[in-house]
Amino acid sequence: MPVGLPSKPNLLPVKGVRLGVTAAGLKDGGRTDLAVIECAPGTKLAGVFTRNQFCAAPVIVAREHLQKDEPRICVINTKSANVGTGPGGLDAARKVCHALSKQLACNESEVLPFSTGVVGETLPLEKIENALADCVADLKEDGWLAAAEAIMTTDTVAKGLSREFVIGGKKAVVTGIVKGAGMIRPDMATMLAFVGTDVKLPADVLQTALTGAIKGSFNRITVDGDTSTNDACIVMATGQGEVSISQVDSDEYKQFYQVLEEVLLYLAQAIIRDAEGVTKFITIDIINGKSEQDCLQVAYAIAHSPLVKTAFFASDPNWGRILAAVGRAGVVLENIDKVKIHLGDVCIVEHGMVSPGYTEERGQAVMDQNEITVSIDLAQGQEKARVWTSDLSYDYVKINAEYRS
Amino acid sequence: MPVGLPSKPNLLPVKGVRLGVTAAGLKDGGRTDLAVIECAPGTKLAGVFTRNQFCAAPVIVAREHLQKDEPRICVINTKSANVGTGPGGLDAARKVCHALSKQLACNESEVLPFSTGVVGETLPLEKIENALADCVADLKEDGWLAAAEAIMTTDTVAKGLSREFVIGGKKAVVTGIVKGAGMIRPDMATMLAFVGTDVKLPADVLQTALTGAIKGSFNRITVDGDTSTNDACIVMATGQGEVSISQVDSDEYKQFYQVLEEVLLYLAQAIIRDAEGVTKFITIDIINGKSEQDCLQVAYAIAHSPLVKTAFFASDPNWGRILAAVGRAGVVLENIDKVKIHLGDVCIVEHGMVSPGYTEERGQAVMDQNEITVSIDLAQGQEKARVWTSDLSYDYVKINAEYRS
Repeated sequence: MPVGLPSKPNLLPVKGVRLGVTAAGLKDGGRTDLAVIECAPGTKLAGVFTRNQFCAAPVIVAREHLQKDEPRICVINTKSANVGTGPGGLDAARKVCHALSKQLACNESEVLPFSTGVVGETLPLEKIENALADCVADLKEDGWLAAAEAIMTTDTVAKGLSREFVIGGKKAVVTGIVKGAGMIRPDMATMLAFVGTDVKLPADVLQTALTGAIKGSFNRITVDGDTSTNDACIVMATGQGEVSISQVDSDEYKQFYQVLEEVLLYLAQAIIRDAEGVTKFITIDIINGKSEQDCLQVAYAIAHSPLVKTAFFASDPNWGRILAAVGRAGVVLENIDKVKIHLGDVCIVEHGMVSPGYTEERGQAVMDQNEITVSIDLAQGQEKARVWTSDLSYDYVKINAEYRS
Repeated sequence: MPVGLPSKPNLLPVKGVRLGVTAAGLKDGGRTDLAVIECAPGTKLAGVFTRNQFCAAPVIVAREHLQKDEPRICVINTKSANVGTGPGGLDAARKVCHALSKQLACNESEVLPFSTGVVGETLPLEKIENALADCVADLKEDGWLAAAEAIMTTDTVAKGLSREFVIGGKKAVVTGIVKGAGMIRPDMATMLAFVGTDVKLPADVLQTALTGAIKGSFNRITVDGDTSTNDACIVMATGQGEVSISQVDSDEYKQFYQVLEEVLLYLAQAIIRDAEGVTKFITIDIINGKSEQDCLQVAYAIAHSPLVKTAFFASDPNWGRILAAVGRAGVVLENIDKVKIHLGDVCIVEHGMVSPGYTEERGQAVMDQNEITVSIDLAQGQEKARVWTSDLSYDYVKINAEYRS
């Protein structure tokens, strides 16, 4: 059960972006499993990709196409992640782009391929090629929700967000969709996320905005510490709306950046809210560290601790496990007696021991909630970091033991 | 169900070491829960302790006593780990030592306290003090098995090993016991392990042997990446046997070291074989890395991956998860196409893709075993590292969600 997500997001069309889906027979049960996103010529596109060194064939092809052309079409298949598939996998990813370019009368390098599913499984190329015409026939501006549904794997709900905003009296829109529930610890990138806007921006300005906005959103979530081989986040700016932005330092840029960051943060958190087996949405806030790196190291030590995560699942205020994780995080704590740990607004640890005002009842009251913040004051500097994660439940084990994802 | 462990180890007495236990009412059901190990005067003792910065009160007291005296008595309680308990916890640990020193007519600083159980819970001092006389009355040379049982928490079997050996025609013995099943990723130390020998060694030589032998044994196991606040490994050399060793470079030392290392390796692996919820005993072998550190980083990325661990639990040859973990480990792999991954003796990945000879049946045959080796050839140097871990099962979640450990 996702934590605090609508069952169907209300997604607004973006002028110049059309989306089409079909059931290509990749998933069982006749569900939609293949999506195409087509942007109008002139669209500027920015992307960030996984830093997993065994990156997927489609990631390699997408990076190539971004270097030599101005891609404006995305094709996304489920079932096979097309990674660990060697030259044959690369060839298959290129063939998908080629087949779609024929349908849409564009260059092959204007198409970016994306795959999500089982690592090491051969791409079902023929099924995909045969189904592309149906996707193209289905292309429409209000296809965002259908696309969000078609790219789901272990996700339980379609995830997306739209924001309408006004810059200098002119209206604009940003709509984004995302998939991902497990193998989640994005590194410089994310799971599959696609964001469209009608704002007009140069490609380098768009890339600067994306690279900046990723940092505090997709690069700060973790389900299981497992960085995927296929992570990608794409922003497409069609330039068909009223707003136009020319450079990074402008007021218009700052306003756009704020909206983009808000959408990316929502999409990143949506992954955690729908994480595999999730019952709790957990925010980990580290303050007063010597460096951001120190803060992140402590935050991830907590976020990846199976003992902390199972305690959250059990709603058990077993704060000793949080304390133990802080102590083993590998960050030298010179003022360990000044370290403070809060669970929600309840101080649990200060002066190196349980806080005098702490009671089991107060801890339990926080743990009984399904959205919980853990705050750690490291008492040794002025840097901070915030990370979001989920708990570790029977269902996480079930999903990953029974389903080959 | 432990993997490949006897239900009751056959433990030999060590001349000069007596062990006593009692049921102090710390655990439910009248089980033994308090143990005392008393070594004869003249015994040399070496210890290594957790590097978790929130270390437990008994660890602080034990380190103090080792600096100012020649301790020869250990007292171990279950139920409370006596950590995060502030000055009151330190005072309680000292009071336990004081009470026992009165019973055994020795200095307070000849006693080392050890605690295992819930972090943050107050030490049940009165129950412990009241039960010490029973422990002392129970002291006997063949008390090793009873002591191994008394210090168990989520352990399902008592774990220990004895080795008789001959050096220069003279007989000697090493007997060790260990507890630990969760919150296991020892760092410079281990869970609670107590090893006795009748060999005569100077204290500094014994410490050198222990520090060396820990490195490839207790410091290479992980259940959940959570380094405990209470880890400790103690070796006690009574010098009451036939063998005497005076310096580190001698042949006698090397022979003793080999036996000590064998016992510590067995005890460390026994923890993994009895890990919380374990169904598989997994060896991770990394070869041809640039540095040992690189090898360890890759090994732990695999050992801590919830996706890899759940695949092992499911006996699912989902090797893509291993490949993804190698790729995200943070080690730059310059020859990624030369990286080879084996599951048992089956090559699963070479040339950056699934091996031509790999079949699902061959992968399944390895996964169906309950002892599995994963080998990774990083193809970039000559260093290596080996790590042992367990799988992630429903029972791991159950044990840590339902039991406050």
